[in-house]
Parts: sequence; C-alpha cells; structure tokens
Amino acid sequence: MKRQFLIVLIFALSFAFVSGQRKIVNLPDIPGYVTIKCDFHMHSIYSDGDVWPTVRIDEALRDGLDAIAITDHLEYTPKKDYIPLDFNAAWKIGEGYAKERNLILVHATEITRKMPPGHFNALFINDASLIAKDSVWDAFEAAIKQGAFLQWNHPGWKSQEPDGIPKLYDIHKRMLKNGWIHGIEYFNDSEYYPLVFTFCKQNNIALMGNSDVHGIISEIYKSSEYKNRPMTLVFAKEKSHDSLKEAMFAGRTMVYFKDILVAKEEYAKPFFNQCISVGKPFFQNDKNRYFEVTNNSDVTFYLINGIANSPATITLAANSVTRVVVSKKVTSPLTYDVKNVLTGEKDNLKIELKY
Amino acid sequence: MKRQFLIVLIFALSFAFVSGQRKIVNLPDIPGYVTIKCDFHMHSIYSDGDVWPTVRIDEALRDGLDAIAITDHLEYTPKKDYIPLDFNAAWKIGEGYAKERNLILVHATEITRKMPPGHFNALFINDASLIAKDSVWDAFEAAIKQGAFLQWNHPGWKSQEPDGIPKLYDIHKRMLKNGWIHGIEYFNDSEYYPLVFTFCKQNNIALMGNSDVHGIISEIYKSSEYKNRPMTLVFAKEKSHDSLKEAMFAGRTMVYFKDILVAKEEYAKPFFNQCISVGKPFFQNDKNRYFEVTNNSDVTFYLINGIANSPATITLAANSVTRVVVSKKVTSPLTYDVKNVLTGEKDNLKIELKY
Amino acid sequence: MKRQFLIVLIFALSFAFVSGQRKIVNLPDIPGYVTIKCDFHMHSIYSDGDVWPTVRIDEALRDGLDAIAITDHLEYTPKKDYIPLDFNAAWKIGEGYAKERNLILVHATEITRKMPPGHFNALFINDASLIAKDSVWDAFEAAIKQGAFLQWNHPGWKSQEPDGIPKLYDIHKRMLKNGWIHGIEYFNDSEYYPLVFTFCKQNNIALMGNSDVHGIISEIYKSSEYKNRPMTLVFAKEKSHDSLKEAMFAGRTMVYFKDILVAKEEYAKPFFNQCISVGKPFFQNDKNRYFEVTNNSDVTFYLINGIANSPATITLAANSVTRVVVSKKVTSPLTYDVKNVLTGEKDNLKIELKY
Amino acid sequence: MKRQFLIVLIFALSFAFVSGQRKIVNLPDIPGYVTIKCDFHMHSIYSDGDVWPTVRIDEALRDGLDAIAITDHLEYTPKKDYIPLDFNAAWKIGEGYAKERNLILVHATEITRKMPPGHFNALFINDASLIAKDSVWDAFEAAIKQGAFLQWNHPGWKSQEPDGIPKLYDIHKRMLKNGWIHGIEYFNDSEYYPLVFTFCKQNNIALMGNSDVHGIISEIYKSSEYKNRPMTLVFAKEKSHDSLKEAMFAGRTMVYFKDILVAKEEYAKPFFNQCISVGKPFFQNDKNRYFEVTNNSDVTFYLINGIANSPATITLAANSVTRVVVSKKVTSPLTYDVKNVLTGEKDNLKIELKY
Repeated sequence: MKRQFLIVLIFALSFAFVSGQRKIVNLPDIPGYVTIKCDFHMHSIYSDGDVWPTVRIDEALRDGLDAIAITDHLEYTPKKDYIPLDFNAAWKIGEGYAKERNLILVHATEITRKMPPGHFNALFINDASLIAKDSVWDAFEAAIKQGAFLQWNHPGWKSQEPDGIPKLYDIHKRMLKNGWIHGIEYFNDSEYYPLVFTFCKQNNIALMGNSDVHGIISEIYKSSEYKNRPMTLVFAKEKSHDSLKEAMFAGRTMVYFKDILVAKEEYAKPFFNQCISVGKPFFQNDKNRYFEVTNNSDVTFYLINGIANSPATITLAANSVTRVVVSKKVTSPLTYDVKNVLTGEKDNLKIELKY
Repeated sequence: MKRQFLIVLIFALSFAFVSGQRKIVNLPDIPGYVTIKCDFHMHSIYSDGDVWPTVRIDEALRDGLDAIAITDHLEYTPKKDYIPLDFNAAWKIGEGYAKERNLILVHATEITRKMPPGHFNALFINDASLIAKDSVWDAFEAAIKQGAFLQWNHPGWKSQEPDGIPKLYDIHKRMLKNGWIHGIEYFNDSEYYPLVFTFCKQNNIALMGNSDVHGIISEIYKSSEYKNRPMTLVFAKEKSHDSLKEAMFAGRTMVYFKDILVAKEEYAKPFFNQCISVGKPFFQNDKNRYFEVTNNSDVTFYLINGIANSPATITLAANSVTRVVVSKKVTSPLTYDVKNVLTGEKDNLKIELKY
Repeated sequence: MKRQFLIVLIFALSFAFVSGQRKIVNLPDIPGYVTIKCDFHMHSIYSDGDVWPTVRIDEALRDGLDAIAITDHLEYTPKKDYIPLDFNAAWKIGEGYAKERNLILVHATEITRKMPPGHFNALFINDASLIAKDSVWDAFEAAIKQGAFLQWNHPGWKSQEPDGIPKLYDIHKRMLKNGWIHGIEYFNDSEYYPLVFTFCKQNNIALMGNSDVHGIISEIYKSSEYKNRPMTLVFAKEKSHDSLKEAMFAGRTMVYFKDILVAKEEYAKPFFNQCISVGKPFFQNDKNRYFEVTNNSDVTFYLINGIANSPATITLAANSVTRVVVSKKVTSPLTYDVKNVLTGEKDNLKIELKY
Repeated sequence: MKRQFLIVLIFALSFAFVSGQRKIVNLPDIPGYVTIKCDFHMHSIYSDGDVWPTVRIDEALRDGLDAIAITDHLEYTPKKDYIPLDFNAAWKIGEGYAKERNLILVHATEITRKMPPGHFNALFINDASLIAKDSVWDAFEAAIKQGAFLQWNHPGWKSQEPDGIPKLYDIHKRMLKNGWIHGIEYFNDSEYYPLVFTFCKQNNIALMGNSDVHGIISEIYKSSEYKNRPMTLVFAKEKSHDSLKEAMFAGRTMVYFKDILVAKEEYAKPFFNQCISVGKPFFQNDKNRYFEVTNNSDVTFYLINGIANSPATITLAANSVTRVVVSKKVTSPLTYDVKNVLTGEKDNLKIELKY
C-alpha cells in the first residue's frame, strides 16, 4: 500500500545479461527456408585473439546468432610461447559449451598466407592439424579432403592489396576451376569489396560477411553507428549443422552489415517482402491518400527514385510503422529502388508498394 | 569497387525520426481482443504544460501509442495572461493532425479540485467548456451528460494525501454508487497506488496508468531505468475510437510501467501466454534437460518461487530466448510466480512452463 | 551491515535533471577572454516553434549554454488563430525566468523575407513590434535604430538558394556598406556554408552558428552522431550581457558543431592550445619515445599530415589522454594540421606538439 | 563551398577508442597528495578469467585507471588442461605492455582458500610461484617475506558467509596482530560490506574497492546504472609504483562505486571540497538569494538534512552547476550531510556551503 513496495520491487527487477540468453534479431525467414544468422570468421587466444573460445559463443548469443566458426590461424600464433600449439583447441573447448546453448559451432581454421592466395577459412572440417602444411596447395587439398567449405577472406584487404581491389590471381583461377572456393567475403569487419559480388555471381558461389573479430565484439561494434557485427545470413532447409552446410555449398546466403543487405535478387526480394507489409489507406482528403507501411525487421530500408507525384524517397525505419502520403493522381503500386539492398555489384533491389 | 562507395552510401543512411512514424511496441494482442496502447493524461500549453498540442501526438507515435487524451485543466490555467482561455483548444488543434497519423485522439479535460474529490479526467466528451462549473458535482454531472468516462487521477498524490494512501471520501462513495467513476489511476508518472487495485476490483472499474506529462516525454523517460512512459493497455474488439470506449467502460484494461504489468488475472494470464513460448528440450545429459523459452515482448518477466530441483528464479529477458536447465528429477511443467505481473493488490500471476 | 543498506541508498541516488541545473561543457576560455557559449536562433509557440519560451531556457541550461536569443518570426506566425500576436511575448515570458537561472537572454526577433535578402535576426533590441514593417529596409533601419546586431541567417538555405551557395545580392552589399550586417550563420542546424567564412573575413564580421530549433533540442540532437547543437562561442571580456554584445560587434566568435570548430586563426590557435597539453616522454626504448597528450576539452581533435617518421595522423579524443609513440630519429616538435579546426574557407589550423 | 565538403569531413571524424588512450576521470587530487585510481583484483585466462592479460590493461586505460593488479588464483586454475600453470604469467605478459602505456602494473596473486581465512590478494610481490604453499599460513608468510600488501577479499561473500556479514575468525585476529592484513575489500564487484569500515578503522588499515572481474569490464558495467567499476582511490605523494605502495601501507585510500564514496573523514572532506565550489549570489529578490554550486567531478553528491528555511535536499549533479535558492532569513553557510559519502560504518560526511 506504500510507495516502498514499488521501490523494492523495481530494484529487484534490474536485469543483467546471462550466459545462455540469446537476443532476438528481427531478420525474417523466407518462403521455403529458415534464415540462419552466422559469423564464420573470428579468433581466440589460440591464435592472435584476446579471449577464451567460450567468450565467442557468449558474444554470439548476445548478438542473436545461430552459428559461428572460430577460425584461429594455422600460421600465425603469436602466443605460442605461453600457450601450447593446438589447432583444434578452440573447437574442443567450445563444442560442448555451444551444444548446451543451442548454438551451432562449425569446426574451422584459417589458412594464412601472403597474397596470392591470401587468407582462407576452411569450414566444416574434422581436424585442423592435418591442414597445417608447408605448401598452401597441400593445405587446401587437405581441407577439401575433409569436405571443407573454403572461404576466401578479405580479398581486397589493404595490407595485401594496397588499392583495396580484389584480384583473381592464377592460383584463385585454378582453385575456382577445381571448385575449391565456395564463398568469398564481401564484408570483413568494416571493410567491404563490391567486386566480390561479381566474382560470386560468375562462379555461383556464396557471398560471405564476417566480423574477423580479434578483440571484444561489444567494444568494437558498440557505437550506435553499428547496429550489429557483419553477418552471413544463410537460407537453410532447417536450423541444423548439416542443413547449414548444404545451404552454404548451394550458395544461399545474404550478407548484412550496418543496415546494408547484399544478395542475389532471388533472396533479396522475398526477404524484403517478409520484412514489410503495406496497409490499406486509413485516411484520405481531396488531394491525398494516407497509408501505412509496417517494417517488422531490424533493418531500416531507404527507398529512392519514387515515381512522379509520389514521395521521391521513403525511409522505412526498423521496427516502425511509416505513414505514406500519396497524391490521388497516382495509382497503386508505387515503385522504388532500395538504396541499401544491393543485388549486384552496382544494382539495387527494385520493389513495389501496393496499397 | 572502391571503399568510397560504402562511405557515401552509409552516410546517406543516417536516420532521423520523422513525424508520422510509429515505433512498434511489442505488447501482444490477447485472444478475442486487440491491445490498444494508450495514455489518457497529459497537458499542453492550454493549461500548465510546456508544449503545443501536436507535440503530444508526435510523442505518442514515437512511443508506439495508439490512443491518447490531452487533458488540460479547467481550473488551473497559469498561461491565461498570454493565451486566451479555450477549454477545447487542444482538441481542435489536434483532431485533424491525429487523424492524418492514424492516432485515436480522445476529446477530454481535467476537473481539478482539492481533495476530496481531487482531480478527475473526463474522457470521451463533446465540449469541455460545458464542464467548467463552480460546483464539482455539477461538473461531474455535465461530463456524465456528455457520456464521459470519469477517471480518478493520482488518488494518493502526496500533495493531496500526505501519506500517499488513496482514501474513499463520501463524495467518492456517492460517485461510485451513481456509477460515475469508471477508472482510477494505479500509475501516474512515477507514482503508483497498490490500493487502487482493490478499489477497482470491488467496483468492477478500470485500472488506469498514465504519464500526466507536463514537460517533454523523451526527457522525462529517457534514462534506461524507464523503458517507456506509464501506459494503459485496453483490450478492445477492434482498433477504433468506439471500440476503445466500449472496452474502457467494460473495464478491460491492464497498466504497464517499467516492466511492471498490473491487471486482473483474466487479462494478465492470456497476455503472458501470448508473450512467451516454450520449446521442446534441445539437449540433455545424464542429469539435466535443456530447453528454451522465447519472449517476443518488450517486457522482461521475472519468475520466482520455482519448485524443488528446478531453478528458483528465471529471468525471461525482453525480446530474448532464455535457456532453462532443469534436473531430470523434475517433470514438466515447472510452476512460477511472476514477480512483475500483479493480479491483485498483493498477488502475483502464477504460470506454468510446459516443455 | 546488511546488503539492504546499499540497496536503499542506491535507489535513493537515482538522479533526474532539475530545472536550473547547468551541464558543464568543457570548452576553455582563451587568454584575455571568457568563452560564452551561445545559440542565437530558436523559435517558440509565438511563431512556428513547438514549445513555451521557458523550455528554450531549460534546454539551454541542459546543454551548458550561457546565452540565448528566442527569435520568433515577425512575418510567419501560423498559430495566430489560437494565440494573439505579441512580438515581444517570448522575451517577456523568458526574461525573469532566465535571470533567476543565471542565463543571459538576448531580446531578439527574426525578420523573415524571401531571398533577397532572406532571413535576418535582430539581436539586442528593445521592442520587436517596432521592427514589424512592410518594407524590409524599413525593418532593418528600425532594428539598427535600436542598436541591433543583425545576423544574416542560413544564407545558402536550399529553400531559398537551390544550389546551397550563399550569394551577395545588391541589398546585402548595401547593408554591408552601411555596416548593417554584423554576423552571418556558418552553421544553421545541420546545414553549413563554407563561403560564409570568406564573407565574414572580407567584411570583418562575426561567424555565427545556431540551432534554429523549432521542435525539441534533445530529440533533434540526441543521436551520438551529434554531441551538441550548433553553437556560437563568443570571446568576451567577462560573462555579462553587455560584454557579450561588445564581443559580438567586435567579431570575436568561433562556431562549433559536431567536433568541428571554425574561427579565425587568432582565436582558433589559443583555443586549441588551451584544450591540450603535451607531457614529457614517460618511456623510451631503442627506437622510440613515448609521450602523452592530454585533451581536457569536449572536442576530439583529428591531427593530419604528420612529418616523416612521426605518426601520419593522431586522434586526440575528447576528455582523454592520448599516447604518442615517435621515432628517436625525429626531434620535437611534431607539426600537424587539425582536420576539424578550420581557419578559413579551405584552411586548417596548423599546430605543434612539443614534447 | 558545397555541402559535400562537410559530409566527407564528418565521416572521416568518426572515432574509435585506440589502445593506449586513457579516459580522463574527474576525481580530483587532494591537498598534499595525487589521487591514483586503481583496481587491485581481476583475473585473466591464467586462472578463471576469460581474457588475455593485456585486455585488463586496455580496459583499465579505457576506464581511466592509473594502476591495476592482475590477481590470478594460485589454487583455482580450471584451464590448466589447456594452458600450462605459470603463476607469474599475467605479470610477465603485462609488464612491458603496461609500461609502454604509462600504467602501473602491480605484481600480484590471489591466495584462494575456504573461509576461514577466505581469499587474500598478495600485492607488490616478486614471485607468485613461491607463495603457492599447501598451508595457507605458509603462503601468507611467503608473501610477507616478499614485502606483500595483503588484502582480504570480499570478507562477507555469500558463498563463504551465507548471511553476508564479515567475521573476524581466529586466523584473522592472528594476522592482524602480526600486521599481516593491510587492507580489506569494502566493495567487491556489486557486493559491499559496511562492517569493513569498522574493521579498517580499528586496525588502521586500508579500505579497498575492486572489480574482481572475470569477464569483460565493458559488458559488466555497461548499464547507465553503473558509471564505473568499483575503484580504490589511493592518495599518494606522486604517481609512481613506489609512492602507490607507500600510500597503501599507510592506509590512505577511498573506495568508489556507483556514486558512493567511502573514506575516513580526513580524506573524504578535502576530496569533497576539491570537487565543488560555491559562487556568490548572482540574483536576489525580496525573499530569496540565488547562488550556484559547481561540481567539477564525475560524482553526483546528494546533500540531505538541510537546516530550517533552506532546501531540505540538494542534488549536486556530476559535471554540472546547480542553482540553490535560499531564503534571506537564513545566513550563510548552509550545512548538510552528504548521503553518498560515508565516513564510517553508519556515518555521513557533514559539509558546509558558504555563499
């Protein structure tokens, strides 16, 4: 009956994130597939990262991910004076911890060479130690023998390509011919490489987007400028390790960073359509009709290039309902390009709003 | 192909809230009803508030509300030397603005007297000027004549009840007898009055929760301590002005502030059940089963008083999936009290988790 | 002795901003002058603003300002059907309120015409109603008669200058000749006009930076992208109304927005030097010396164009101590350009770090 | 001259924290001493912590600390199957890294036993491996032989003292008699033990406040509820390792967490006086005088128990200027208790405001 009651109650309600709790990220499934949220590039103290492997799993849950790979370098292990080399250590430490938290941990490693061929992650392997070979070709072969998905990492990394532009060297061409490159990073941390879209399209392989985190995720991506770390969204038949693997080899991915989505149109269009819904007009006057567009996703969409007599641009804020006022001179649907959904090296998704 | 591309793109993506855009608040409907999010107590410059009436509408959209009432005082108008008295001004200024934004604006006023009877809002009126009477009883009668819903405001306000405890004076008893009190504020800004639950139960009237804002909503409730302003959730047959009114007279409300929900069990239980879903065990070992509870709402639920061999407490964080580890000695369902869902002056909602 | 003690204590410590409390903004004085933090362009409900005049004073204190002007339009008063015209109302309502809070309120108005001449604020006036003239020239003359400081507002505003570039029309030239333009806005809300620096230099008048706020300051500048609203920093002999006026007519101003500072070198250089201090080397090894630079201001400085063998760029974060590692081949001082301190239309401040 | 100029400039200004950069924490020195900000209790992967030792140093700089100790457990090393035992590893890895960043790293370890005697940190040691003894008394003796400062950790930790109340067991009394306890934790993470103040006073030893962090500092203390981790403020003759050590053995400490400061009055009073300054009245009317109190520190002070005719409470917000309005009936100074500055188990600092 007194104020004190609420005081005590409210104090007790203060809430801290608990290991095992997973944030819900609002990125929808698409018809026929579940959307698995992934990060396939990160480091622990077993190479040049700053944290114990289980920290990567806790971070992934906090970020709402479903699957990750800890990809410690085979060739760069600056802590080896303090920690004995064990290329499978992160996997062994993380496997049970991930299972108890319903997170898919993909067994993986990073083959780390100068350009060419640069750095490659081998995902879905059995034993990283067998991939530690002097010859990089031998390393690739050993990975392939284990059924690995080979991901070319940050192909335009300025430390290796000073102009920032990825290039297909002979070895890459030979690998592609062999079917040994299954994905290429379009996003790596805050770098990105538009040309990768073209490489992936031509070779029918998967676009990848990953954090390549060495430090602490929540310190690196904490500013409001970043909503999230870079992610690979995989469109899988179900949420399982094997289904994830099947989808990746089939190239069914979309990459996501900072409100930017990049995918083939066949994935980008249904994804957008699952994010938004358009209502019937709720009001009209002599000149205009008023309707609402609901965006249930965490992505803000920036519509541009509206037709005559309709708004030139519309911002569909994440998790918001946006009112659109449109002249009665215009007939439904409105058409727009989505500035932040890229369906090619230089192409934007085209959409319709039917009201 | 260059970095610059992303730089320009990302700069262009910076996003500012636009008038007419409504945040999605994750508070579910319950079976048979839609949940209308409301605030029925606020002030503009037409009494002692700081802002133009349309600001209250923009604030409401930003907070994801569906319906509001601007309730300027009839008897306290400190700006009248600068602004001519017009008890319907906020309504007249706001009506069209709200309609164009798909917000329900309820025509209203505040009858403002010393205790007893204290302050009352008259909601769903036609003309506030006709309610400005010398005698408070006459004012009530004039409001009732307009079909008003009479809400007793902050009945334990310390300026009027120094001990903070609401009291039923004779005039209140007479009003209740006449059916002239239709709701009482349980939450008013950061005050609350548990005894109101008992008053409302005994008289079968509506629990109300409102901001009573005079300044700027986003400055008052900006700290992370407050997720939201106090709200009245109304369970209506559809989202419309008339349906809202019917539901309020029928007493179908729940009040919400700072992760605390207060309602009769008949509303609290289905509401909780719409917020959460319990998965099948995803993992087990010799001792324990592991399952997940998904909370798709913006409310964090604090479960307490778990049975033997189960977690004593579980925190179901808002918009998160929480892992629960439970001994194989225990059989489903687990039972809990929900600390922050109150179904009586001193009662907590009791729930089950079936896995 | 129990935990409860701290619980109660800590609850009681929750803190809300109180009217009259002023944030300390870390922007130093310069030798010989105090730095008065100002915003000379804002609106209330007395023209097309959303708030009661006193809200502008509370907002100013919250932002750590020392002086403001409420500059309601003479010619654009869309609320006049609801509020009687009174061009001095904001001043009359605010004067005492400001005085009791130690804030300098400058009596002012906005002369609002199409381009040319565009919009002008008349600051330091006695009676706005005498400036409401049909002819703009008459209005200017009436303002000058009152001793006004005439500020040309947003000279490149896209609604009036579609290419965004300020132009000196005949009327501006005549005004300049008469000494009737005393300052020009370089920053107005999120617009800015580099060419204004040249205009001000040529005519020896004051650079101005203001918010031109119509809505709510804390909603407009809340994102982390903005640390603060645009401000005019005035270098005055003391913190008083008359000293402020003297300094403005003398052109002793600097404008500040989003970590960008713009001023003549004679103000920018001592300002920078008051913000930072350089320590002696605290460590050295065979190759390098290590020293610290302390930045006690709220401005992050971005140093670029370092000399050979020294860091090419250094970021001196606001309110932080930055370590600098420099080769022993280099001798003190290091020289840099400060990217975000502009001393001309296209010039950057040049500074030295002596360690 | 175009808008684009600012766009590019501003993009380039986005700022990320850089290793080596130290936040300035506004906690003043006191007359005769510099205030060294410290955390003497934290863990790395070398016991049960989650991070590589250098992360603790980066975190300390980000939090504005001057000195830390990494205190891995001697007896609890759950990662020893993966990482070879080396009780001095964190020290060896961190020593050079700290030196190059101007941070004082104190060589230390944690002696970890059940209660009694519980857990003790040995600070300022030479070789942790020599302290790893079967008998806890032998361990203490070995630490003392190295000149260690022995800190009793979390003496009321609920895992060891279910009622949360610290108790002096025989072994503690013997240690005190020998002069073998030099400090006791009053704050440990979010626990605190008021009785510790009495223990420290009676034995003339140092109050200690530390994080005992195992995970990531910025994740644990990120909510706005916490401004900072728990800290020990040491009043030293100069900022150096040896001066720090001398001050701690002399008991010149204050502990700080969540706006709460705890110290003997001889330190608390001058500290408060360095934080605040009181101005002369800037305004008066018939009834009241108005003056300002400037609080240049990061601590908000809560003044209570004001004298008659003066404000009963005053909140001096951190980094703010607070206006005080006081009746002319009252003569300066006003007297207050400071609710959040504790000078004994149950005592509050008493202060005066002279205007």
